[in-house]
Amino acid sequence: MKPLRFAVTPGEPAGIGPDLCLLLAADAQPHPLIAITSRDLLAERATQLGLAVNLLPVAPGHWPDQPAPAGSLYVWDTPLATAVTAGQLDKANAGFVLETLTRAGNGCLDGHFAGMITAPVHKGVINESGIAFSGHTEFLAELTHTAQVVMMLATRGLRVALVTTHLPLRDIADAITAERVERVTRILHADMRDKFGIANPRILVCGLNPHAGEGGHLGREEIDIIEPTLARLRAEGMDLRGPLPADTLFTPKYLEHCDAVLAMYHDQGLPVLKYKGFGAAVNVTLGLPIIRTSVDHGTALDLAGTGRVDTGSLRVALETAYQMAENRP
Amino acid sequence: MKPLRFAVTPGEPAGIGPDLCLLLAADAQPHPLIAITSRDLLAERATQLGLAVNLLPVAPGHWPDQPAPAGSLYVWDTPLATAVTAGQLDKANAGFVLETLTRAGNGCLDGHFAGMITAPVHKGVINESGIAFSGHTEFLAELTHTAQVVMMLATRGLRVALVTTHLPLRDIADAITAERVERVTRILHADMRDKFGIANPRILVCGLNPHAGEGGHLGREEIDIIEPTLARLRAEGMDLRGPLPADTLFTPKYLEHCDAVLAMYHDQGLPVLKYKGFGAAVNVTLGLPIIRTSVDHGTALDLAGTGRVDTGSLRVALETAYQMAENRP
Repeated sequence: MKPLRFAVTPGEPAGIGPDLCLLLAADAQPHPLIAITSRDLLAERATQLGLAVNLLPVAPGHWPDQPAPAGSLYVWDTPLATAVTAGQLDKANAGFVLETLTRAGNGCLDGHFAGMITAPVHKGVINESGIAFSGHTEFLAELTHTAQVVMMLATRGLRVALVTTHLPLRDIADAITAERVERVTRILHADMRDKFGIANPRILVCGLNPHAGEGGHLGREEIDIIEPTLARLRAEGMDLRGPLPADTLFTPKYLEHCDAVLAMYHDQGLPVLKYKGFGAAVNVTLGLPIIRTSVDHGTALDLAGTGRVDTGSLRVALETAYQMAENRP
Repeated sequence: MKPLRFAVTPGEPAGIGPDLCLLLAADAQPHPLIAITSRDLLAERATQLGLAVNLLPVAPGHWPDQPAPAGSLYVWDTPLATAVTAGQLDKANAGFVLETLTRAGNGCLDGHFAGMITAPVHKGVINESGIAFSGHTEFLAELTHTAQVVMMLATRGLRVALVTTHLPLRDIADAITAERVERVTRILHADMRDKFGIANPRILVCGLNPHAGEGGHLGREEIDIIEPTLARLRAEGMDLRGPLPADTLFTPKYLEHCDAVLAMYHDQGLPVLKYKGFGAAVNVTLGLPIIRTSVDHGTALDLAGTGRVDTGSLRVALETAYQMAENRP
């Protein structure tokens, strides 16, 4: 069997991404895991943190087939544009950050990596450098020529995918079209099957309005848009329940019989996911031709170099990427 | 000290309200608790459930000063219009249901009761009878001449109040006005202090948009409306944090230092509350001149008379009303 090799991108070099990767190296991983970043950066940050991590160089044509032993980390050295001080953003390194993502994404497309796991980047500093950048997800969608991706957050025991993501609240209702609900549901269903190995995924769908519209009294999008769309998809054999009121859906009666929840918008689905999964939630991008998971937190510039960081989310992001690759048909 | 006497309204006679009150009578309450409903109904339902409950008649001028012993329930007999079959709605009894609420509400206003606890009514059947009725909360607001009430759900360890309640999602953004945010925040703050006995309540306020608008990139209501309103109220000494992103607010870092959360709308605040408080959540109406708590579930017609009901929410509703009355200055 071909080894499942994974890429991890520490992201913003002044943030906590490098720290997290170094801390993680204390334990052996079940698969070869390759950090794509500057070897010098990792060496300096390790010194700052007082960590002894053995950095093992790898590169195209020289990929490892076995996991690195505990205390070691594979590194595909990617040069910085300028030296880094922990906690201090420098737009000169924006191109470096994007290069690490490009290497990871292309490595997945080329089959060198079974998946990629991303630590946080800093959107602001990349845009300040003059490169338009709206996030990892959009960057990878473009790199892989993917028209529609779906954001899903997961923690142990709960997965929540979103029909809409980063929209002002007043724009959400108009964005809930039959076409979008169908497209997102299809991607969620296909990826639950093809990337999570669930033969017939059971999906719970939230309504848009409180009480899922209460028979039209509190909004008609359920009747006019969501219900007919779900009915069409059910006729193809999909196991979809809903639209259900969001405030009763997240209870054991429903969740015990569910592989994923589809929420209509960000603040309908994510507060409960992050409450349940505090410190151990992972962001999974569905719809890409590659496996990509991410931590659910930011660069935490004030904590870089301090050692006071929690590797929980990165561990779940790795675990999730491994499971997805292992389950892939 | 004057005894704290409470009224409980079993609500819809064909639903599970009568069952819940009878089941509850197995244990003695810390205060006199009076069920306002038909004595015959309770006697029949007790027989159907195989429960031996001693129904003790009380009435104006004959109020009890001591709690009923375990196995007994005080009843202020209120005649049905027509006999009830468990599980079968009959619009002939709509007037009866409202009469029980009127008795409880007026009893609170007159000082006979320290608070009222409501089991579910069935809005549909009351409206079918020709009486316009949009819910307990609105009915009690009218009865007590209260212009603005605030809906709050609570469970052990978390309270969530709402700026808007039962509005279609597309109408929410326009309803978030400075005037409304201020009014609701004042009521929440005053009731936390005066009804919950918290001298200086700490309130966390959600933004309206995802990521609380992300500095205006995802909506401007935080900058234009919520922040200035909170700043004005802070200047009066209120302890208000926010607007905070709803998906990170519900984590220990914030919740450990908070007496109540103010969410902008129903599905932003209630999914996490009901997830955390499953089966043990209570609805508290703030802003009324009286104490009123309610179960957070419906009439469950299919379970009436079966005994397969969970008294968890009613127990928390009672417990909360008792605490509020005991803490009232």
